[in-house]
Amino acid sequence: MEKSMLTIDGLQYCKWDRGIFEQLQAGGVTAVHVTIAYWENARETLSNIGHWNHLFEQHGDLIMPVRVAADVLAAQQQGKTGIVFGFQNCSPIEDDISLVEVFHQLGVRIMQLTYNNQSLLGAGCYEEHDAGITRFGRVVISEMNRVGMVVDMSHSAERSTMEAIELSSRPITISHANPDFFHPAKRNKSDAVLKALAASGGMLGLSLYPFHLKNGPDCSLQEFCVMVAKTVEMLGVQTVGIGSDLCLNQDLGVLEWMRNGRWTKEKDYGEGSSADADWPAPLTWFGNSADFHNISRGLADVGFQQREIHQIMGENWLRFFQESFSPA
Amino acid sequence: MEKSMLTIDGLQYCKWDRGIFEQLQAGGVTAVHVTIAYWENARETLSNIGHWNHLFEQHGDLIMPVRVAADVLAAQQQGKTGIVFGFQNCSPIEDDISLVEVFHQLGVRIMQLTYNNQSLLGAGCYEEHDAGITRFGRVVISEMNRVGMVVDMSHSAERSTMEAIELSSRPITISHANPDFFHPAKRNKSDAVLKALAASGGMLGLSLYPFHLKNGPDCSLQEFCVMVAKTVEMLGVQTVGIGSDLCLNQDLGVLEWMRNGRWTKEKDYGEGSSADADWPAPLTWFGNSADFHNISRGLADVGFQQREIHQIMGENWLRFFQESFSPA
Repeated sequence: MEKSMLTIDGLQYCKWDRGIFEQLQAGGVTAVHVTIAYWENARETLSNIGHWNHLFEQHGDLIMPVRVAADVLAAQQQGKTGIVFGFQNCSPIEDDISLVEVFHQLGVRIMQLTYNNQSLLGAGCYEEHDAGITRFGRVVISEMNRVGMVVDMSHSAERSTMEAIELSSRPITISHANPDFFHPAKRNKSDAVLKALAASGGMLGLSLYPFHLKNGPDCSLQEFCVMVAKTVEMLGVQTVGIGSDLCLNQDLGVLEWMRNGRWTKEKDYGEGSSADADWPAPLTWFGNSADFHNISRGLADVGFQQREIHQIMGENWLRFFQESFSPA
Repeated sequence: MEKSMLTIDGLQYCKWDRGIFEQLQAGGVTAVHVTIAYWENARETLSNIGHWNHLFEQHGDLIMPVRVAADVLAAQQQGKTGIVFGFQNCSPIEDDISLVEVFHQLGVRIMQLTYNNQSLLGAGCYEEHDAGITRFGRVVISEMNRVGMVVDMSHSAERSTMEAIELSSRPITISHANPDFFHPAKRNKSDAVLKALAASGGMLGLSLYPFHLKNGPDCSLQEFCVMVAKTVEMLGVQTVGIGSDLCLNQDLGVLEWMRNGRWTKEKDYGEGSSADADWPAPLTWFGNSADFHNISRGLADVGFQQREIHQIMGENWLRFFQESFSPA
């Protein structure tokens, strides 16, 4: 693994196996935030953590858990990929504030307050109305701040996101989304949200998921990198990283679980439609983690300096992890 | 807190509050193994751990968690009582071997394979027939050995206990029970079991729970200490500690929960009877943790040397924790 370029991916949800871990290594990925729950309750999440413990046991030569930011540097030293646990929803804590600390003890460092829908904490980006952060949401944000668990608003609605930025005493993240000036989509974010995020010291992970890109799977590397440049111009380079939202080797059933959980009997198609219900076609220039080198090359091609490329590819995330993962 | 006498209690299950923690301090108790589950499933156990996290937050001047044996010495240095989490049953891991490591990550260091009844792992001491350690039990013992979670057979039946001693690659414990030569009771242990425990390097915590004592609540300090001496004669001093089984401030509903869980609709009276259904009357010389000084005095009065008293009161448990709490 090339030691000079620290590379951190702000979100992936693959069907993890040795082949995927080898791709991470081929792409020089020093650390990756992995999703371990969408709709799982507390009990189900325990088994997901148990599954990851087994992956660490089996593939300890390629991956290691990240509990504190220094573990990312240890992973780099050892030529491994550090794994940061995150939830894309608050379902694992159910209605029990004490589970924030319990899951922090189990290594969870990032939690979305909502996943598309209204949650017990706030509104998701697919809700028609957004009443902002709830009573439970306020105390959960405070508890997350205390124990060192990052608030992630990637799948949240506008008002809830603005309020989370305001209520959180520590910087928050939008770990995988794009500006809606690039591609208007419910999952992408307004200038107002992104500027508030940047002003509060937060981090934005720019997404490579085709539904978040102009022209979808046909979006070119250059178009993506020009969008990165415009975002950096708007927010400052220190705010910007990559959050690929890479979902590899997952079958349609997993996509349906992500979109429907147990909350609807009628099928919801999320960012797709009944005519376009499956996973999007992959980008030609970003098929898996081994293609991270293309991103850094593309950033250089649109005029980024090496220093900025290092920040965007990983150093910004590392700084954010350093500020975020330990108790207040 | 007197620093010269390291004192460790091999089991308590109180209704924990500041008053109880102050009694522990008054008794010079450096560490105590506390029960956090009897019949609770995985989800319920998470909330129990969350409750303990809250106690640590509120009473951090008096108590601290013990994850490794060195934490006991840190507690002694800081004049606090170290808290070791344990289960009196395997119900928290349900049917999922991966939960052994998950609960170890949450600080659980000791687990009984059974609580009075047949469990998924082995037979309890109230079962009529004991078929020994089950298929699941064998692999769970192996996993407990790997991660550093102690096998406790206090409430298990004879054959299962002998097999657990044999199958476990690391020494096990009977954390709170007495020899049945002192008082024949289903919860007390045969010479054969105790000798096998000692031969394998295990630890016995002698119980102060009246149901385990000759003459019940009327057992004298001297009778107890003579029993300690006979046990030391049989097993060697290095095997013997105290496991008081102190249950303070718990109402009858808690005793009924311990005895009945959710497994019976007809009331089971455990060690009691329908005519004697309540908590036993307390010993005059051991009413709470502040009375640990009586035990060390009583041991001296029956002829123990100071060196042996130190071993029995805490150093043997400390050595056992040092050998037991870290991954293999």
